Amino acid sequence: MKEEVFYGRGMKKIKADYPEVYDAIIKLNDAVYTGKVLDYKTQKLIAIGIAASRCDESATDRQIRSAIKELGITSDEIVDVLRVVLLTSGMPSFTKGIRILEEIKK
Amino acid sequence: MKEEVFYGRGMKKIKADYPEVYDAIIKLNDAVYTGKVLDYKTQKLIAIGIAASRCDESATDRQIRSAIKELGITSDEIVDVLRVVLLTSGMPSFTKGIRILEEIKK
Amino acid sequence: MKEEVFYGRGMKKIKADYPEVYDAIIKLNDAVYTGKVLDYKTQKLIAIGIAASRCDESATDRQIRSAIKELGITSDEIVDVLRVVLLTSGMPSFTKGIRILEEIKK
Amino acid sequence: MKEEVFYGRGMKKIKADYPEVYDAIIKLNDAVYTGKVLDYKTQKLIAIGIAASRCDESATDRQIRSAIKELGITSDEIVDVLRVVLLTSGMPSFTKGIRILEEIKK
Amino acid sequence: MKEEVFYGRGMKKIKADYPEVYDAIIKLNDAVYTGKVLDYKTQKLIAIGIAASRCDESATDRQIRSAIKELGITSDEIVDVLRVVLLTSGMPSFTKGIRILEEIKK
Amino acid sequence: MKEEVFYGRGMKKIKADYPEVYDAIIKLNDAVYTGKVLDYKTQKLIAIGIAASRCDESATDRQIRSAIKELGITSDEIVDVLRVVLLTSGMPSFTKGIRILEEIKK
Repeated sequence: MKEEVFYGRGMKKIKADYPEVYDAIIKLNDAVYTGKVLDYKTQKLIAIGIAASRCDESATDRQIRSAIKELGITSDEIVDVLRVVLLTSGMPSFTKGIRILEEIKK
Repeated sequence: MKEEVFYGRGMKKIKADYPEVYDAIIKLNDAVYTGKVLDYKTQKLIAIGIAASRCDESATDRQIRSAIKELGITSDEIVDVLRVVLLTSGMPSFTKGIRILEEIKK
Repeated sequence: MKEEVFYGRGMKKIKADYPEVYDAIIKLNDAVYTGKVLDYKTQKLIAIGIAASRCDESATDRQIRSAIKELGITSDEIVDVLRVVLLTSGMPSFTKGIRILEEIKK
Repeated sequence: MKEEVFYGRGMKKIKADYPEVYDAIIKLNDAVYTGKVLDYKTQKLIAIGIAASRCDESATDRQIRSAIKELGITSDEIVDVLRVVLLTSGMPSFTKGIRILEEIKK
Repeated sequence: MKEEVFYGRGMKKIKADYPEVYDAIIKLNDAVYTGKVLDYKTQKLIAIGIAASRCDESATDRQIRSAIKELGITSDEIVDVLRVVLLTSGMPSFTKGIRILEEIKK
Repeated sequence: MKEEVFYGRGMKKIKADYPEVYDAIIKLNDAVYTGKVLDYKTQKLIAIGIAASRCDESATDRQIRSAIKELGITSDEIVDVLRVVLLTSGMPSFTKGIRILEEIKK
């Protein structure tokens, strides 16, 4: 089972106080990450690309950490994702992604 | 060789009038899509996810068309990309991506 | 029952080919639009503000049409939403929202 | 009178050094938050939705704080706004909004 | 006097029905485009860069048209703006800007 | 030569481990900031406008610092850029830009 949805400090609160929202998120998460043809790892790489593309630091950080921890995704793989971010989204998104990756690897 | 960079109507103009910009784009495109570990197809799926995530209709359309034509990427694979877009970027990005895909398939 | 989720041309396709995604979207939609304290109309106004704020033309158009048709939301109410868009998101988002509203009202 | 415009550290500087910009902002703020039909509270909820939808942490934080302090807006009301953010803008915007709300409530 | 604010179809409607919003926009527009040190042309180039950076087609189109018509800004100047867009915002924003410019020049 | 590309902590790592990406970025940076008609300073002001418009704090901070240090760009010039951000992108982007500028000037 994919644990991503349980990440994040706010989720426990959601589960306790707004269980119908929590259940809907779990169901959505399962439907999303049970792709018909792409494996979870490829979908995770796409999620990293989307987060980095938006310059969303905390989401990028969380996605990269979970990619490394859950799936053994390597630095080189993440840099290959960030190459696509560089071309499609520009230098600031790319350098931010690289910086976040370097900080995680420390 | 990856032809993507030659796509788009404006590029011929850039090549003729601003050759140093054109050369830089070619070089960047090559450096991006020659990832160390990920193959071109996976990088293309990431590019589709990023374009769809931003609700950028013309970029999403072009990325999906080039994915199908150049790489034989299937509808099911693109829907698996759009699942990640649904979770990370919300319904409007997802439905727009699905609509673009359906129009291309007609 | 709130029908919004059935809108959009691509949704029929999703229901037929990817029922688990469709079911998750229905469940999410229900959990979202059954707020504990805010009524559906207020939530709809928020959805219009978010769509207009992003300059997402097709989502803004669809949200405004559904607001008028489903809930009898008035032009003045939508302009009051767009006032907030003007302050928080700038002139291009505001003028685009006004133009979409005027075209719907024709 | 609505004090929001006076919030933010930079504003005192703007008032002193660029009074014509300051006056224009005050006038805009008044025109925006004196909606014809929607009350200030509803407009504030829309502003929270827009800020959270963009993953703009400092704006979301400031909007939520001012909503609670100025208008007595409750946690449940803000979560109902964030539900709309979840559907229209995806999980990262939603979880960020929830986390900011939890931190303010501490 | 700078006429930009009168552009756009929706503005006449705003002036007639929501005069306080219209007046606030005029005042804001004047305060913005009467910079202390930068001339109007430089500010216009910045506005083009911002619109193109967001992939906002209609705003980019309108800004470029008004730049050419009002201020005699040249194609080479706009391409120099779009170079910055390429580096900071990626290929899709750049190619969209180039395409819009080519269509206006026809 | 323009040194901007060497800024940022992650770049040394990119140079060492991914030299083809590094070379492509250098070439792109040179092609971008050697505009045909606009000088480097005007292009830098555009880059600040784009960064501030997106509420990207770290990119805005870095662009403003480099503008002041490399090119002697003044506070009044940056505020004139931020005026355009206010009109095109709304209050949160503007106030964030002003706050970053004030913190740098301390």
